[in-house]
Amino acid sequence: MNVTVRGRARHHRTVTFDAKRNAVLLIEQRLLPHRFKVVAVPDYRATATAIRDMVVRGAGAIGATAAYGLAQGARAFRGSDLRKFARHVDAVFQTLRDARPTAVDPVNAMNGVRRKMSEGATVTAQQALALAAAEEFANEDAAHCEEIGRHGEGLIRDGMNLLTHCNAGWLAFVDYGSATAPMYAAQARGRKFHVYCDETRPRSQGATLTAWELAQQGVSHQVIADNAAGLLFQRGKIGLVIVGSDRTLGRTGEVANKIGTYTKAVLAKRHNVPFFVAIPLSTIDWNLKSGGAIPIEERHESEVLGAWGCTGRGRREYVRVANPASGAFNPGFDVTPPELITGIITPAGIFKPGELWKKRRLLGGPG
Amino acid sequence: MNVTVRGRARHHRTVTFDAKRNAVLLIEQRLLPHRFKVVAVPDYRATATAIRDMVVRGAGAIGATAAYGLAQGARAFRGSDLRKFARHVDAVFQTLRDARPTAVDPVNAMNGVRRKMSEGATVTAQQALALAAAEEFANEDAAHCEEIGRHGEGLIRDGMNLLTHCNAGWLAFVDYGSATAPMYAAQARGRKFHVYCDETRPRSQGATLTAWELAQQGVSHQVIADNAAGLLFQRGKIGLVIVGSDRTLGRTGEVANKIGTYTKAVLAKRHNVPFFVAIPLSTIDWNLKSGGAIPIEERHESEVLGAWGCTGRGRREYVRVANPASGAFNPGFDVTPPELITGIITPAGIFKPGELWKKRRLLGGPG
Repeated sequence: MNVTVRGRARHHRTVTFDAKRNAVLLIEQRLLPHRFKVVAVPDYRATATAIRDMVVRGAGAIGATAAYGLAQGARAFRGSDLRKFARHVDAVFQTLRDARPTAVDPVNAMNGVRRKMSEGATVTAQQALALAAAEEFANEDAAHCEEIGRHGEGLIRDGMNLLTHCNAGWLAFVDYGSATAPMYAAQARGRKFHVYCDETRPRSQGATLTAWELAQQGVSHQVIADNAAGLLFQRGKIGLVIVGSDRTLGRTGEVANKIGTYTKAVLAKRHNVPFFVAIPLSTIDWNLKSGGAIPIEERHESEVLGAWGCTGRGRREYVRVANPASGAFNPGFDVTPPELITGIITPAGIFKPGELWKKRRLLGGPG
Repeated sequence: MNVTVRGRARHHRTVTFDAKRNAVLLIEQRLLPHRFKVVAVPDYRATATAIRDMVVRGAGAIGATAAYGLAQGARAFRGSDLRKFARHVDAVFQTLRDARPTAVDPVNAMNGVRRKMSEGATVTAQQALALAAAEEFANEDAAHCEEIGRHGEGLIRDGMNLLTHCNAGWLAFVDYGSATAPMYAAQARGRKFHVYCDETRPRSQGATLTAWELAQQGVSHQVIADNAAGLLFQRGKIGLVIVGSDRTLGRTGEVANKIGTYTKAVLAKRHNVPFFVAIPLSTIDWNLKSGGAIPIEERHESEVLGAWGCTGRGRREYVRVANPASGAFNPGFDVTPPELITGIITPAGIFKPGELWKKRRLLGGPG
């Protein structure tokens, strides 16, 4: 999407590749929203580190980064011995996979690249195919999000107020985003609307990333404390909720997403406000039989006990907010049951959560 | 309640008076939780400034501060001319009232002091009566909170997990607090329980003040992001919710309290968890006929867009968290309807919200 640098709006993807320098180009997301910087990551080990250290985050974005990283590693190989090359590619694969061991997207993306590579007869051919496959993965990720936008934009009426939680924006994918794609598509059709961004404590992705995206794109928006949505619902100020999802269960329609999503779904239900979840097909889990079986990731308590921000002197710093002698409980996400979800916006159309299993062939599920 | 200074626990009230120095003694709440300091406020103008600048906050605490401030101002008068004295006391009253113009507690407290003073025949007698009345107000505030504890402690069973929002603790009153009083009373009876403190963005009173209080008192507790309560409810980890209230409507049973309270009440209802509101009688509004008539205070957006905390160098600083080009919507409180409230814990007993009007004589309401 658009990024305005020195007064000029340019189109940018979250992840791209510089073939000449054999470098993965990433928006350094840890500097956002205070600074926009693109880093050229020079080799696959550094790419793995960038994934691990959250230079890049979000399902589609780390998938594409790993795909490019695999191509990058493959292209760095010197020689023509196919067996040595295969061993080298295995090592690259493992390094990139281990950067974020619980994520499925990098593994799926890299498996796709490897499949494509296997069609090549020589090291040089396989290297070229690796990059082509990585580019294809990135293009498809962007295209899927664009499709989500096409299917979802009709939900956004002129003059509407929307609510979103966390960042399921283009920074989490290669482009367009999932929850934000319908907003950008509606904007492209000239519709006016206003977005309330939950700040999304403890990591504040709504206040930092989503607000930055919407500002860059010129979408009217305001940040709210996570506590404030209840009042907005009560006063009839929210017409539509769209969020993303880390994992959607194809068998049950349950949606695992950033902590606090469930609360917003409960409020939306109470106030009869449509609650939609926007997802690429890759995040549907066709195996798990119950959301209760998803282990809830407990993150470090320092996230809850303080905040990262920019001081008056322009330095990025952590401040301890909470009582120094107190601890915190910090679960990373929660699970929203299907009865609270109006619909799931996918690249293949909008479905009720209970329809996913029936439509599993259309949605890339098991036969 | 207890404050541990240099390893020794001492009993402390939020607001006291030093008659010899004619000074109001306040816990400097803006330094908490990072530093505990009691300030001696030397004259009534400085006391008004302390109220205005939030050295002290909370209904009962600012009521007692204003009562002491009026006595302090009255005692500073030199002379025996009763008419000059009365004009002086009027000026003191107005200065203290104007420090927090929307609060009702300072005005009610000071009216009580003035009533008592009018029984004195000389300036000296009225000065003595003023201090006695202020002491009485403070003692009664503490006693009312203690009664809330006595009535509410039975709700807390051994091994229970509780949830509370914001700070309705002893720092908001002279002692004991409202929402915390049942906890301290249950603790005194030897019951073990655990309290989840909503951090309560944007001002984080849960993470700072409530967590500090509970830590000082040795009550097991953890801070959670406001987003995390939904998961705890889903997993059956919360047995009871107790919150305070800024204003409870005697005619309808609606409860105005810190932004986010309504959301917790909605979650509690969905999960059949009892939701109690603990209040002194002074916060019951017997006039308003609908919670919708309460104007929602909009506070400065900087509260939502950043956070105050302690840097690594031990300095209290504000950091900007949100995107610099984005604004915020920052409502101060919301209104919880009676159907979500299990009971209201008062110094006169526990009542259903719909019973308040019927019991208005017992509760100090209109005849």
